[in-house]
Amino acid sequence: MLENKNTENTSLESLGEFGLIEHLTKNFTLKNESSIKGIGDDAAVLDFKENKAVISTDLLIEGVHFDLSYMPLKHLGYKSVMVNLSDIYAMNAKATQVTVSIAVSNRFPLEALEEFYSGVELAAEIYNVDVVGGDTTSSTKGMLISITAIGESKEEDITYRNGARPNDLLVVSGDLGAAYCGLQVLEREKEVFKVNPNSNPDLSMYTYIVERQLKPEARRDIVELLKTLDVKPTSMIDISDGLSSEILHLCKQSGVGCNLFEDKIPLDPTVIAACEEFNIDSTLVALSGGEDYELLFTIDQKEFLKIKGNPNLTVVGHMTDQNEGAHLISRNNSKIPLTAQGWNSFSND
Amino acid sequence: MLENKNTENTSLESLGEFGLIEHLTKNFTLKNESSIKGIGDDAAVLDFKENKAVISTDLLIEGVHFDLSYMPLKHLGYKSVMVNLSDIYAMNAKATQVTVSIAVSNRFPLEALEEFYSGVELAAEIYNVDVVGGDTTSSTKGMLISITAIGESKEEDITYRNGARPNDLLVVSGDLGAAYCGLQVLEREKEVFKVNPNSNPDLSMYTYIVERQLKPEARRDIVELLKTLDVKPTSMIDISDGLSSEILHLCKQSGVGCNLFEDKIPLDPTVIAACEEFNIDSTLVALSGGEDYELLFTIDQKEFLKIKGNPNLTVVGHMTDQNEGAHLISRNNSKIPLTAQGWNSFSND
Repeated sequence: MLENKNTENTSLESLGEFGLIEHLTKNFTLKNESSIKGIGDDAAVLDFKENKAVISTDLLIEGVHFDLSYMPLKHLGYKSVMVNLSDIYAMNAKATQVTVSIAVSNRFPLEALEEFYSGVELAAEIYNVDVVGGDTTSSTKGMLISITAIGESKEEDITYRNGARPNDLLVVSGDLGAAYCGLQVLEREKEVFKVNPNSNPDLSMYTYIVERQLKPEARRDIVELLKTLDVKPTSMIDISDGLSSEILHLCKQSGVGCNLFEDKIPLDPTVIAACEEFNIDSTLVALSGGEDYELLFTIDQKEFLKIKGNPNLTVVGHMTDQNEGAHLISRNNSKIPLTAQGWNSFSND
Repeated sequence: MLENKNTENTSLESLGEFGLIEHLTKNFTLKNESSIKGIGDDAAVLDFKENKAVISTDLLIEGVHFDLSYMPLKHLGYKSVMVNLSDIYAMNAKATQVTVSIAVSNRFPLEALEEFYSGVELAAEIYNVDVVGGDTTSSTKGMLISITAIGESKEEDITYRNGARPNDLLVVSGDLGAAYCGLQVLEREKEVFKVNPNSNPDLSMYTYIVERQLKPEARRDIVELLKTLDVKPTSMIDISDGLSSEILHLCKQSGVGCNLFEDKIPLDPTVIAACEEFNIDSTLVALSGGEDYELLFTIDQKEFLKIKGNPNLTVVGHMTDQNEGAHLISRNNSKIPLTAQGWNSFSND
């Protein structure tokens, strides 16, 4: 897909580094009042006035975090931004800017980078963030993406990981496990394609889970919903490495324990169907699958009525004293210690 | 040097991703009032109050931007931070925070990353910046570094690239070309080492130029000096790609031309000696060598007396009307158009 066999493609050498940045970002306009100066100087200039700034950064590597054999570049640009905005929303803040740096080898034509940047632009448009900086350089192998997301918030609204208290309710947005199931479908189709390049698979029954893998949405809407409902979470984190790993982060940093109820974990019917097809346990997928980019947060019990019945939010457990530990309460009522089985980028598994 | 043959070295798998970040950053404390929350949550939280925030980011790739065969990892950590702080100082701002992300393949032992982070820590210590975030992940090949630097400034002090006016003086800090000459020495010794691994070269006569390549210093002192002298530059940029390329940036963005005088370009005697030894033109090295990380700025002529005679600052030319173009006025008084021969990471040269 990406091999530069099309003679109409434009080589990156022909543009040069400065020409490339100018070309790729020429349509980007600044939409936020806090964006004073964007791309084009030594640094971007931002103005958060009395608000606090929140900043998060991520490095994404081809072959480790994404596979270009089934990840279209436009989706990759979109997802790269989402992954970082998700961290800003997990602070209960408003995302306002991103910087986008990429390194690619010479095998990428200009048109491939344009595809990537069109995904970045779409994400910036929909989520109302400004692309204010970045760097474009060459790599010796494959594609590397580094994104920094910046946001702002009133001090009193910022939600850390360390504010959960015993008896707080544990709440998750959306549903879990779909991104991991989507990845299984894509990996399987990749293997099929290797054997039979003419295969034309019908993936329509997997639309939801494949979309959750290829085009996740960061939950800006949940941050806005919580403000509308007048709910201030006591702690919050986004679910990038699986529910289990994130719960343990909240527990460790807040100095509390947790009871998570297996029968409360929100699963889409297509996730349950895919887990049956792939013969994997759906609870395990939700606990350890990762890449859901949902928000996990704790609230005081007295806030429960404000969120009760909201289709976007599910109470999945409650926090306990630290010495009780963190457990999954299974459907048959046994108590299983939660372990961090989140994605470990240094393991060879 | 980096091959993990020492059985006492610690593999990265044994720590896992979260353990690794914790381990590498455990000594990092927050020194700046604007650093509210550093590493350990979804995002860092910063408070710039009435000041503007400035943000710059860079991606550094092994084999493109650095060569580990002669770049010690501690120096690499230090230099990676310097390269980014230099962008903040080029805005006439105070650098306050950095985020540091690295990706390495499994051939790197923990001890190698500790070396890298010790350089980051030293830079943060000396330049009084806080390491407030980052990401540690695995790469499929080599080492990748992504740094975002953050600073702050009063609005009226921020200096852009676009404020130069005709007749403004063009001023450069320090001296130029040394980093490029240092690179030539290191590249030559690498070739010698390949032929004779037992060679024990005496590099003492190259100390200055090799240090400028391996351990550059960002010019925070110049930003402070300009404040002390009560000089507000009309435009400013840092010299990362060579004097010629940076002058053209100032000219283009300010809509002016420039006369640069060859005999004014500040060169260290060891640079002149190295250029003779390597049979390269010292003016060309200053114009196109890159990696000097000096500051280039323009000032109103009436500020001249404030900087006159200062050993850190050299007037190298003056700005002109745009239609006069940008030229080097050579020692024999001929007028040579300046061309951007700065480093182009997409060329194969």
